[in-house]
Amino acid sequence: MTTLIKNGEIITSSAEFRGDILIEDEVIAAVGADLGNTADTVIDAAGKVVFPGGVDQHTHYSALCNTGDQDTAGYETSDSALVGGTTTVVDYAPQDPGKGLIESAQYRIDVRAKDKVCVDYALHGFITYVTDDNSGLYRDIARLSEMGIHSIKCFMAYKNSPLHVDDGVMFRVMQESKKHGITVFVHTENGDVIDEMQRECIARGEVAPKYHAETRPSFCEGEAAQRALYLAQQAGGTPLCIVHNTSKAVCDVIAEARGRLQPVMGETCAHYLFLDKSYLANPDFEVASRYVLSPALRDKCEQEHLWQALRDGTLHTIASDHVGIGMDIKRQGLDRFDRIPNGAPGAPDRIPMLWSHGVEKGKLSRVDFVRFTATNPAKVCGLYPGKGDIAPGFDADIVLYDRAWRGAVRWADNPNGADFNIYEGFEQLGRVETVLLRGKVVVEQARFVGSYGQGRFLRTRPYGACYTGL
Amino acid sequence: MTTLIKNGEIITSSAEFRGDILIEDEVIAAVGADLGNTADTVIDAAGKVVFPGGVDQHTHYSALCNTGDQDTAGYETSDSALVGGTTTVVDYAPQDPGKGLIESAQYRIDVRAKDKVCVDYALHGFITYVTDDNSGLYRDIARLSEMGIHSIKCFMAYKNSPLHVDDGVMFRVMQESKKHGITVFVHTENGDVIDEMQRECIARGEVAPKYHAETRPSFCEGEAAQRALYLAQQAGGTPLCIVHNTSKAVCDVIAEARGRLQPVMGETCAHYLFLDKSYLANPDFEVASRYVLSPALRDKCEQEHLWQALRDGTLHTIASDHVGIGMDIKRQGLDRFDRIPNGAPGAPDRIPMLWSHGVEKGKLSRVDFVRFTATNPAKVCGLYPGKGDIAPGFDADIVLYDRAWRGAVRWADNPNGADFNIYEGFEQLGRVETVLLRGKVVVEQARFVGSYGQGRFLRTRPYGACYTGL
Amino acid sequence: MTTLIKNGEIITSSAEFRGDILIEDEVIAAVGADLGNTADTVIDAAGKVVFPGGVDQHTHYSALCNTGDQDTAGYETSDSALVGGTTTVVDYAPQDPGKGLIESAQYRIDVRAKDKVCVDYALHGFITYVTDDNSGLYRDIARLSEMGIHSIKCFMAYKNSPLHVDDGVMFRVMQESKKHGITVFVHTENGDVIDEMQRECIARGEVAPKYHAETRPSFCEGEAAQRALYLAQQAGGTPLCIVHNTSKAVCDVIAEARGRLQPVMGETCAHYLFLDKSYLANPDFEVASRYVLSPALRDKCEQEHLWQALRDGTLHTIASDHVGIGMDIKRQGLDRFDRIPNGAPGAPDRIPMLWSHGVEKGKLSRVDFVRFTATNPAKVCGLYPGKGDIAPGFDADIVLYDRAWRGAVRWADNPNGADFNIYEGFEQLGRVETVLLRGKVVVEQARFVGSYGQGRFLRTRPYGACYTGL
Amino acid sequence: MTTLIKNGEIITSSAEFRGDILIEDEVIAAVGADLGNTADTVIDAAGKVVFPGGVDQHTHYSALCNTGDQDTAGYETSDSALVGGTTTVVDYAPQDPGKGLIESAQYRIDVRAKDKVCVDYALHGFITYVTDDNSGLYRDIARLSEMGIHSIKCFMAYKNSPLHVDDGVMFRVMQESKKHGITVFVHTENGDVIDEMQRECIARGEVAPKYHAETRPSFCEGEAAQRALYLAQQAGGTPLCIVHNTSKAVCDVIAEARGRLQPVMGETCAHYLFLDKSYLANPDFEVASRYVLSPALRDKCEQEHLWQALRDGTLHTIASDHVGIGMDIKRQGLDRFDRIPNGAPGAPDRIPMLWSHGVEKGKLSRVDFVRFTATNPAKVCGLYPGKGDIAPGFDADIVLYDRAWRGAVRWADNPNGADFNIYEGFEQLGRVETVLLRGKVVVEQARFVGSYGQGRFLRTRPYGACYTGL
Repeated sequence: MTTLIKNGEIITSSAEFRGDILIEDEVIAAVGADLGNTADTVIDAAGKVVFPGGVDQHTHYSALCNTGDQDTAGYETSDSALVGGTTTVVDYAPQDPGKGLIESAQYRIDVRAKDKVCVDYALHGFITYVTDDNSGLYRDIARLSEMGIHSIKCFMAYKNSPLHVDDGVMFRVMQESKKHGITVFVHTENGDVIDEMQRECIARGEVAPKYHAETRPSFCEGEAAQRALYLAQQAGGTPLCIVHNTSKAVCDVIAEARGRLQPVMGETCAHYLFLDKSYLANPDFEVASRYVLSPALRDKCEQEHLWQALRDGTLHTIASDHVGIGMDIKRQGLDRFDRIPNGAPGAPDRIPMLWSHGVEKGKLSRVDFVRFTATNPAKVCGLYPGKGDIAPGFDADIVLYDRAWRGAVRWADNPNGADFNIYEGFEQLGRVETVLLRGKVVVEQARFVGSYGQGRFLRTRPYGACYTGL
Repeated sequence: MTTLIKNGEIITSSAEFRGDILIEDEVIAAVGADLGNTADTVIDAAGKVVFPGGVDQHTHYSALCNTGDQDTAGYETSDSALVGGTTTVVDYAPQDPGKGLIESAQYRIDVRAKDKVCVDYALHGFITYVTDDNSGLYRDIARLSEMGIHSIKCFMAYKNSPLHVDDGVMFRVMQESKKHGITVFVHTENGDVIDEMQRECIARGEVAPKYHAETRPSFCEGEAAQRALYLAQQAGGTPLCIVHNTSKAVCDVIAEARGRLQPVMGETCAHYLFLDKSYLANPDFEVASRYVLSPALRDKCEQEHLWQALRDGTLHTIASDHVGIGMDIKRQGLDRFDRIPNGAPGAPDRIPMLWSHGVEKGKLSRVDFVRFTATNPAKVCGLYPGKGDIAPGFDADIVLYDRAWRGAVRWADNPNGADFNIYEGFEQLGRVETVLLRGKVVVEQARFVGSYGQGRFLRTRPYGACYTGL
Repeated sequence: MTTLIKNGEIITSSAEFRGDILIEDEVIAAVGADLGNTADTVIDAAGKVVFPGGVDQHTHYSALCNTGDQDTAGYETSDSALVGGTTTVVDYAPQDPGKGLIESAQYRIDVRAKDKVCVDYALHGFITYVTDDNSGLYRDIARLSEMGIHSIKCFMAYKNSPLHVDDGVMFRVMQESKKHGITVFVHTENGDVIDEMQRECIARGEVAPKYHAETRPSFCEGEAAQRALYLAQQAGGTPLCIVHNTSKAVCDVIAEARGRLQPVMGETCAHYLFLDKSYLANPDFEVASRYVLSPALRDKCEQEHLWQALRDGTLHTIASDHVGIGMDIKRQGLDRFDRIPNGAPGAPDRIPMLWSHGVEKGKLSRVDFVRFTATNPAKVCGLYPGKGDIAPGFDADIVLYDRAWRGAVRWADNPNGADFNIYEGFEQLGRVETVLLRGKVVVEQARFVGSYGQGRFLRTRPYGACYTGL
Repeated sequence: MTTLIKNGEIITSSAEFRGDILIEDEVIAAVGADLGNTADTVIDAAGKVVFPGGVDQHTHYSALCNTGDQDTAGYETSDSALVGGTTTVVDYAPQDPGKGLIESAQYRIDVRAKDKVCVDYALHGFITYVTDDNSGLYRDIARLSEMGIHSIKCFMAYKNSPLHVDDGVMFRVMQESKKHGITVFVHTENGDVIDEMQRECIARGEVAPKYHAETRPSFCEGEAAQRALYLAQQAGGTPLCIVHNTSKAVCDVIAEARGRLQPVMGETCAHYLFLDKSYLANPDFEVASRYVLSPALRDKCEQEHLWQALRDGTLHTIASDHVGIGMDIKRQGLDRFDRIPNGAPGAPDRIPMLWSHGVEKGKLSRVDFVRFTATNPAKVCGLYPGKGDIAPGFDADIVLYDRAWRGAVRWADNPNGADFNIYEGFEQLGRVETVLLRGKVVVEQARFVGSYGQGRFLRTRPYGACYTGL
């Protein structure tokens, strides 16, 4: 079975050229200026930009949210990620209550994803059930590798919940992870400071969503990042990936660590590049609460700092932190902002938003667009080579993007598992027209044409790019 | 009433010279090469070294220790501090259970110290009763100044106890303190890491006192100091005094902060300069448990780092962290090191040990000895001028030290409120022979000859040396 | 005209795969797993490693050396570079005595290179004739761009010669270069310190070649690099490329600058990775003098620092600093080491030495080998895209390397313009078998089969990678 | 012979108090609140501030200026320094043409100062005659100590003159100085950059005095300081005193070095605190040329940076850089600013200006005023104890300052060896009323009443405060 994509403006992680891509079965066989016309299927990419399918290293399907019976949207909604140009996600596998990392990840593969998942996916271990005795946790880390998992996430915020990984447990997780080539992903916010600020804020009767941002100042990110980096050095130089960075404060800390050659990489998310905290000030709870996510949206001026940090090598990946959370869940915090479950959908919008407002506005080169959305996440997560680039031997995960299309972001055009889109109404320059997943066309005319369950679980390799450099 | 001290080798905070000191009532009236012989009392200091009475900025009388009915030794044992050459202490005033800072400090003055205290004393506010609502605490900070208290201590370690000040409360304390010229004193240890290490250690059945040091590694000090300094900067540049530093790890953090001109000073304690963790390895619990104090005693090589940090301006004061804790209390941890109440007596030994093993061994100049033991603590705590130096107008708190005396440290020679001395048997070069407190001879022939209750409560001034520099 | 390279182990700057490369005329048309067999020429690369032709960013053909009538080897000897796997050089165009940058470069193209040069070549402007009035120099910088030259070299060493660019002139050169997107290349050594050390050394009668290294300590590199970086910042943030770095001292300075995000990149040369100063100690002048080059060969331990600096992103390119200097010239310094003209040949050996002792010994990954020897130099010098990688649209400059070959470096196998090879006798693992220059086979069976004059002058683009990042 | 100064407001380097000073012969015998009335001489200091006589660590009497027969004012004009409250100067002893350091210093003592000098004085060695062979210079450094000289000055600027100490010679001077406890004083300006800027400036026809400042930008100071510090570290950690700092650029460099605990101290001069480059813009050459001194006067905003650097411990001493240069000499540069001999008088004005515009305006505490003008210079130059403070055993060099006096700076009130005063017309708050030099009244009613030749040569001690800390 061969497929030929003809005459596209091809962008890889290192070069741009006009030409063709030849696919044999699931894999790219050749790239060239003109590879002829003899294939089982020929796709005309004339006038289209062609780039690798996106790799989103930060998604939360079936996030559970500690909300009892209600759950956030599951893998059956990952069709919208594909329609948004993302072919691979690295999803967080939280511990099911009372269960270990391994058991929870296996259940996720066997039950939650099975017959539903539309994208290829790998998993991060995700510590969400810390107890007084964590010896089982440390033992599980040694076994993650067998499962093909080589990253583990720690929450520094959310104290007084089983999600909270305190410094002692985190230090031990860092020590154990280093032994097995596992990268530690850290949500860096100083929970203590946030908790005390929230308590005082609530006590003053300030309960609207906008206080979510007021009580999570950016220096809490900077402090926690500095602390995580200090502990990682003491734990034996464990490489870190600091997730969803939002501010100059935290970027300065990462840049300083990189300046002393400590192994660390940084992620930001699309919404920190395009949204700011004014969205939280909407007097309508139904609107404002959509933007309650953590770390909080910041002052508009931080956006330029983040673009700069991407350009200067302080940040390396752009993710979505997608969670398909509906308004029914958001309304749990109707009376108090600190009770609004955090998060928002974003996986379907990452690629179109970054193209429209990054590449087309001159903030990102095309090659960097590919690196930040596909190549670098694949390298950080141990999926490279294989995912995240266009070259012979790589999986044929390919996006044909119609640069000429003009329109706006509309939830209705690509429902995302929630009942709103945080970018609703944003101008969109071009759209994902066709997507191939391992050589098979799964999106056509911007519509999902694949099958539920087509996604494959990907075993990652140890010693990802936080260990080795990009 | 005039007193004349004749022919001493006088050491002040800036100079050395041979001569006389004239005292009128409680105050130094003159210093000179030869001030004649006409005074009500003439004290012959020929052959004696004469320096300002010590100022010990870190003592814990009646420390309470959370040990129920038992308390550690109270102010009635401060006669031994005088016999050890210390005329002023800045004592910690912990919150009595359920009481505020102000109320607790006032009770300490009115009840605990009254008719007992032998040295002049000032107080540090000491947060030891953190609750869910700390608004009362923040209000009390604004009122400390009226009471003549301008320092406040936060414990970063000891999580899961009301002693623990979490980062959120500490940040708010820093903000409030800055408004009133109050210096924040911080015990910097990362309690989370220590707790997790202790849990695993106990689980392995390792319960002897020596594991106290193993489970409190020095990087926990460095991390917490870095965090406290980060938060202090964010709180508006609140000046800090980091107490009882023990290691290169934490000194590096302080030196870096001072290098960027952040307002911070550092204290160490005499026992970190002379003792090391090998004392904890004694197989006899009755011996080893005496050395359980926090931060823990370190590897011997750290001692040289501390001397260096004193010389290069990273550390500024040497205190005792005195607590008159007896073996009856220590035995609470007979089966598990983590249950041994922390602390040891030291106020009586600070001056003789530093002279014998600091000055006489060439590690400290004489002028620096005066600065570290008297002048700098007085400046840091807002007691300068007045205390801590020999100059006209200063309180006549003066030590005559007999350099020629030879002997050893013996608990029996100067009982300290506990039933042991951690320096027992150490060589002692010279001894405190005579001490004047505000012009009155209170120690003669190395024996207390004053009266209980003679000590005076000292109101400190705001904006101490951590704000203004030395 | 099509050429097909079949079944090679292809290495690009970002990926490795087994497959084919299709060339149309001078340019790569396609890469793929199997591109069929229909081409005008088919080259079997089975069992061969295939990588982009090397880009050597630091060569000195016809270097003039200030040696009067004698000149070092010219472009007619660049056939040996091709045989060594290098298809592009960026050669230094020194000012001819009394001539300007532009005039000298044009003469080099029109006369020196014409009908002789075998590799494609771009030029660096090279200030070698500093006078009291440098206004002409500054005007020439503005015109370099028209000539397709976007880099300029300053010698900080060699005081008291017209080669020496003092800090004042260098500062002005930096200011002018920044305006035109020109990168300033700097030879960083503190000439004053070296001169005084040499004077004292000679005065002591120490004149043998080994004193060359003794009187050029590595801290002179570090100091000069720090100074150049300080001035570059003041000149408006002019991007620098610091050439031929040899030591931890200078790498630390570069790493610190990069840590504060100053635009700077670093080059090292193959001989600093494989040779050390013990070679200078040979008692035979005829041998020792071959190794007189600047900066001097270092202690062996520096080699590991350089490998580390390559891996951690402090250094970015590996060049040869080739100069075809013969023993007749070297003998000018028979009586005094400071009179030995500096330099040694190296362009022909760079690729085989780095493969044999870098890739095969596990010090470099294959992808990094390509980056350091081809892609990065092309990016730094404004030749990318086009040169330095294997991708559709790039010039078909391609090396087929026979990994299986076993032998040793022999001058006689590939004469280099001088009469010795500094790597003589080093083990060689594999050899360059076939080289294509713009699609044409110019080396076959490790022999030059091209024509003299086939090399093309390459106009570089402004704002190279020191401005934009890699 | 006893003298009693009664009832002054005494300020020492560490304390303030009201009281008396008793002097026996040349030395302070006692300080006290009330030392009676029985002395040979009693001086009533009621209503006067009493502080130690100033120590000016940077003066140039008989500076020679390379101006042929003309010399600047000699030691016979040092009476004006006394009248200005300075009792000790550390004067630069430049090499007489063709003579060595030792010979030149001895001639200065024996001939130039003899029977003329009014203040006590020590000497700095001053390299001003660099030749091709500096072995004699290095030998002289080893002999400076015998002469009681423990500091040596290097000029980094003024290239192409025998004043210029190039980096190589400076490095060797640093190495030799370290062996003998000699402190290296450095004039840090990058002469190359200044020379090139001046050449271009003159070529544009810009020749007025104001271009003096334009062609000596402050970054030249920062660069040279950074270079000197780098070389000093390599030379074995030689302590430096960086003189006459003027700008944030250089203070940042010093602060960074101090942050990494490198031994370095910084001096500024009074004129950088009170004057700015607008004075150079005066269209009248006769006025503007007075302000031509190096480093040049800066933008007014730099003044606040310098006050801050004094307060935060980056700078340690305030000197005058006094040179009694007359307008006849200044006119050498009538047609071109670069030919105007540099320098201006200042020793007589340092104390009154700093009191009036420093202490009285709240920029300096009184204790810091004493430290910066007397104690610290004495410590840096190896004159402490003995000079620079008020304590028993110190030389009785004492100033009685009348705070209440109101007036303005007038050249005519205290002629300074030149024919102008750069502070002419500045408001003056208080004045030096009485000065004692070693117990003898030498200034009375603000008039010199001593004798020419009364000044004594002071042998300094090795290992000054740049080695040991203050």
